[in-house]
Amino acid sequence: MDIANKLIEFALDEKDIPASASHILNLSLLDWVSVSLSGVNEPVSRIVRECFLEEGGNPEAFVLGSNKKAPSRVAALVNGTISHALDYDDTHFASLGHPSVAVMPAALAISDRVDSDLETFKRASLIGMEVATRVGVWLGRGHYRKGFHVTATAGTFGATVTAGLLLGLNERQFKMALGLAASRAAGIKAQFGTMGKPFHAGTAASNGVEASLLASRGFVSAEDGFGGPQGFGLTHDSEDNTRIFETLGSEYIFEGVSHKFHACCHGLHAGMEALIELRDKNFVKPKDVEEIEITVHPQYLNVCNILSPETGLETKFSYRFTAAMVMHGVDTARLESFSDISCRDFALTEICNKVLVRTDPELSETSARVNLRVKSGDSLTNEYDLADLTNPAKREAKVLTKSNSLLGKNRTKEIWSFITRKQPNSIPVSKALFDYS
Amino acid sequence: MDIANKLIEFALDEKDIPASASHILNLSLLDWVSVSLSGVNEPVSRIVRECFLEEGGNPEAFVLGSNKKAPSRVAALVNGTISHALDYDDTHFASLGHPSVAVMPAALAISDRVDSDLETFKRASLIGMEVATRVGVWLGRGHYRKGFHVTATAGTFGATVTAGLLLGLNERQFKMALGLAASRAAGIKAQFGTMGKPFHAGTAASNGVEASLLASRGFVSAEDGFGGPQGFGLTHDSEDNTRIFETLGSEYIFEGVSHKFHACCHGLHAGMEALIELRDKNFVKPKDVEEIEITVHPQYLNVCNILSPETGLETKFSYRFTAAMVMHGVDTARLESFSDISCRDFALTEICNKVLVRTDPELSETSARVNLRVKSGDSLTNEYDLADLTNPAKREAKVLTKSNSLLGKNRTKEIWSFITRKQPNSIPVSKALFDYS
Repeated sequence: MDIANKLIEFALDEKDIPASASHILNLSLLDWVSVSLSGVNEPVSRIVRECFLEEGGNPEAFVLGSNKKAPSRVAALVNGTISHALDYDDTHFASLGHPSVAVMPAALAISDRVDSDLETFKRASLIGMEVATRVGVWLGRGHYRKGFHVTATAGTFGATVTAGLLLGLNERQFKMALGLAASRAAGIKAQFGTMGKPFHAGTAASNGVEASLLASRGFVSAEDGFGGPQGFGLTHDSEDNTRIFETLGSEYIFEGVSHKFHACCHGLHAGMEALIELRDKNFVKPKDVEEIEITVHPQYLNVCNILSPETGLETKFSYRFTAAMVMHGVDTARLESFSDISCRDFALTEICNKVLVRTDPELSETSARVNLRVKSGDSLTNEYDLADLTNPAKREAKVLTKSNSLLGKNRTKEIWSFITRKQPNSIPVSKALFDYS
Repeated sequence: MDIANKLIEFALDEKDIPASASHILNLSLLDWVSVSLSGVNEPVSRIVRECFLEEGGNPEAFVLGSNKKAPSRVAALVNGTISHALDYDDTHFASLGHPSVAVMPAALAISDRVDSDLETFKRASLIGMEVATRVGVWLGRGHYRKGFHVTATAGTFGATVTAGLLLGLNERQFKMALGLAASRAAGIKAQFGTMGKPFHAGTAASNGVEASLLASRGFVSAEDGFGGPQGFGLTHDSEDNTRIFETLGSEYIFEGVSHKFHACCHGLHAGMEALIELRDKNFVKPKDVEEIEITVHPQYLNVCNILSPETGLETKFSYRFTAAMVMHGVDTARLESFSDISCRDFALTEICNKVLVRTDPELSETSARVNLRVKSGDSLTNEYDLADLTNPAKREAKVLTKSNSLLGKNRTKEIWSFITRKQPNSIPVSKALFDYS
């Protein structure tokens, strides 16, 4: 199978998009806007924005956190970095990458440049998200274990397809763009925990814009740069899971994307969700709690099991503390909830000290089991699996709630109404999403 | 050994540069200017220049083939591509890379931006060239065989050090710049034979500028992104030839760089040089030739042994035809000498038909043996090894002759006089080298 040809055929096919995929794309778009706007003042966001806005250049595309436009390649680089700065964006567990932060900034950068309407923007984004996630699965666990950051590598190919669609590349130009992207797709996991990680989202988006722009001008690259000899896959330890491309076009694996609903380590979320359900179903108050037992897959014990956190950052990696936050109804979608001062809140630390963390290797990596013993003697049990995304209405409600927490209800309502409107309109995408004027 | 620390210590040490290294750097600089100016109108040069000049931006650094300046990152990207467009630049065989085209464009881009003088420019370039070549040897044959293009990968680290020196980075900033470069260094050999190959030189130079600029603003990257776990070396199949760094600072392996003196495939050069020596020593004329036998390492037989070339491009891969050019005293340093029309030149094809090509696996990859039988019956033999660079005066003469062929004698003299002048002066480097105003 010539993978590049397969991807191009998928990208250029005038197919109908299933409603379910469109719906999840809408959710990812709202989510991306929320986390992007929330991250504009992070240190990495400031450094990258200032460094590249200083270059000047034509005002082609909106730059987050500024009142300026910049060349598309620059806007994609800066916006990608900013949108991943909080690590609060969506994750596709099967592909081990963050698709929105690589693809959406490329879409916005070219969309602004060529003045696309919302429908074109969304369609190109969805196709790119599907490509990014499929390529991530194709590269596989071996690629990730070797040390490559899928958001950066697979993300570059997704961003290339999205940018190429918005630029109107033909089949040959698409091939050249993907071939060239194979020489730019890069990013290593050594950067995790540094500014280098969010920067990878920016480079993926910017690589996609760059490769597509060059291809549109007749740049000639390796035809088989993607899957051929000495191409990207073979040089970057792809597991070559080629079968993943067989269903391309007939289903959208992108729909399996997970949104983050709590501003803390993803390893904590299943336990928090299980506890939230128990709390709400049984009207449990903090004063009722005798003991909380959280059981998780053992791989998380050295990731997010800080027993008595002393800083806001540490609370983001603590099963015990986030359980206490849940019991007290703290809004864990808000960034500000994870503060230094909260660590000294007696009501929270009191519950924190009643939480036990256990492991069970039989549990999936996305699941947690919670046992809540209340003072009356009753024992309540619940299990939650983040991979269970069967209820789209529930997902929508959760994404909207998160956006409300981050942006406020009015702004969320405006953006969601723009994203979901059926009739065409001429408002530029960046103006509507980011209130940029 | 912490390789990044070792490189930084080398870069920041206020050492004296040996005269021999300075001399070879001067030669590489003249050579880089010559091949760069000769490549400004190649198709890849036009595409990349037009694509990125269109972005606009602050006039920080000179862009080859334009009358414009552009942001440093853009200038490095465009100039790097242009200078490798003809594949006529220098090669470091031990490191398997082209150091000048990755390092010099980064040096020029930052030098123009911060207004460095010639001495500072040359020193920073030399340090970067040494880093690029050492890193190439560290990565080793395994890295190259896997499919990585050393000019792009090792070149990024060389460009980063050069740009960092010209920006005046401190030790900590250098570490961050190298750590970040580890996520940008990329380029695969699938691009060989396409515009992607010269573009790699541009991306290496631009990556170096970008990483250094970000580091100068406080960007935090992986401290051990270069040699540590999930760092560049381990993810990119480095052979980890760490011993190469032991002599860093005490000798300059960059001095082993080879300049190309004929505008054709490097595999032909040893044979051409051997024949030139025989011709000149024995005053052999074309009419004296009975038979020419060229013996080379067998690896070249499927690379550059086109028996009867029919296009200018094919003459660049023909032992027989280039031997005929040598016997007729054609200037093989000039690009125009390798033309379609030359294939139909009776005088050339007549000699071409008298050339036999043999192989000998005992010969080194950089050597050739030539046996020239003349009509009087005498048999003349000579052997030439490109790796024999023991005579610096001879190298200088050859580089100057090449530059004369490409740029003309007057321009060559002006540039060489600027490059080699001892007293300080205030002429901007790009102005003096490229007559840019």
